[in-house]
Amino acid sequence: HDITHDDAFKALLAAKQKAEDSNVLVNIAVVDAGANLKAFIRMDESFLGSIDVAIKKAKTARYFDIDTGKLGELTQPGGAIYNIELSNEGLITFPGGLPIKNKNGKIVGAIGVSGGTIEQDRDIAKAGVQSILK
Amino acid sequence: HDITHDDAFKALLAAKQKAEDSNVLVNIAVVDAGANLKAFIRMDESFLGSIDVAIKKAKTARYFDIDTGKLGELTQPGGAIYNIELSNEGLITFPGGLPIKNKNGKIVGAIGVSGGTIEQDRDIAKAGVQSILK
Amino acid sequence: HDITHDDAFKALLAAKQKAEDSNVLVNIAVVDAGANLKAFIRMDESFLGSIDVAIKKAKTARYFDIDTGKLGELTQPGGAIYNIELSNEGLITFPGGLPIKNKNGKIVGAIGVSGGTIEQDRDIAKAGVQSILK
Amino acid sequence: HDITHDDAFKALLAAKQKAEDSNVLVNIAVVDAGANLKAFIRMDESFLGSIDVAIKKAKTARYFDIDTGKLGELTQPGGAIYNIELSNEGLITFPGGLPIKNKNGKIVGAIGVSGGTIEQDRDIAKAGVQSILK
Repeated sequence: HDITHDDAFKALLAAKQKAEDSNVLVNIAVVDAGANLKAFIRMDESFLGSIDVAIKKAKTARYFDIDTGKLGELTQPGGAIYNIELSNEGLITFPGGLPIKNKNGKIVGAIGVSGGTIEQDRDIAKAGVQSILK
Repeated sequence: HDITHDDAFKALLAAKQKAEDSNVLVNIAVVDAGANLKAFIRMDESFLGSIDVAIKKAKTARYFDIDTGKLGELTQPGGAIYNIELSNEGLITFPGGLPIKNKNGKIVGAIGVSGGTIEQDRDIAKAGVQSILK
Repeated sequence: HDITHDDAFKALLAAKQKAEDSNVLVNIAVVDAGANLKAFIRMDESFLGSIDVAIKKAKTARYFDIDTGKLGELTQPGGAIYNIELSNEGLITFPGGLPIKNKNGKIVGAIGVSGGTIEQDRDIAKAGVQSILK
Repeated sequence: HDITHDDAFKALLAAKQKAEDSNVLVNIAVVDAGANLKAFIRMDESFLGSIDVAIKKAKTARYFDIDTGKLGELTQPGGAIYNIELSNEGLITFPGGLPIKNKNGKIVGAIGVSGGTIEQDRDIAKAGVQSILK
């Protein structure tokens, strides 16, 4: 139940295609079921600071098997898990990180995207996730 | 498209002059286009804690090509990129960090200032940025 | 003078092909001229510990514009730069990291490979480097 | 008994001049009596990996009030303080770091140089140290 490098590439390239179609410059990271880096690409001229954010989004999505944007709803002041971002050497809890499931619905890894608006990042990540189901 | 050490020094000294004119004691850092430290000065009697803050302000400004104070508007509780400060080994998202552009408008590095109020830090950083355009 | 994401992919895939031809399972990292991660792939069943080693080999090769194996000759006990590995958050100074040059001989990035023997890692890295010159 | 920013600049510029006269590209760091970064310059085209090495050389020289090259004689396998490089977030114990004394012989800071051979780095650091005595 672990994403293959072929599928990680497939997700990466589908996300990159979506970014290019949307004229957004992003960094894209895919981690495996163990939350270890599996594949990564940094588009030319994308933000330097997005390398780490993309990787952390992918890891966060797999650490808790959740859309990073959903996690962020719980980490606000007064929230149930306020400031959990301090754990695991830094989590990112805004949109752009999504678990990747195989065709049987089993989580096999996660994808993280950074460089656009949070809506763009989430849409690009979604394109990567969906490519695995085709 | 990378700031030279001569220009980094020029920005540093212009910022230092502005700080002296304003009777403020600051740390000033300049990073290059790769967000790597290029030049630094710590004024006598300035805060010890401002060394790292000045460097992180400069890096943050280049990581996302933005005025660090503008970035901070988005990282508040409920904001689009809440707690992004946890990435990249620590960002600083209040005023005092600014990208440095060359005369053609291309970003070649960034400057970070820490030690005064955030308004003073921003004004001092601005003096550094403007010195490159003269 | 910075490697493009297309060329980074090209080097990555050429190195992966070489690894497959040699029946070796590796992690491959490409960094740009600023030593920032540009592309990465982890082959299925390769060592988990090689993710970080591959990235550090690529960064080390660019930090000092050198074959990491050559650097290692200088870092041994009694060597000129003994224990330099402690700097830059950890260098790797055995073979498997190589600078990447463009057709004009300018360094545009670096590649790091980890997972096989050091000879295999170097050969696989070399295949990546050479693909950019074709 | 702390180096002033004027003297830190003086040492930095004297070292830079020596580097230019010797056609060597280096990074130069000056720390104060508290081993905190006081001034820094990265010459154009010098090694990226030398930023951290120069700063660590300066800090190491002040941490133990010693020529970093002398310290390295004690840190070899079997030596009295084998692998002390692991402490203080990473020491550098080969030549290029020197304490800076004022005219009364009191240590007021230190200088670290990286980018050339270890002999060149030490000579350049020495030029910085001597400028304070003039």
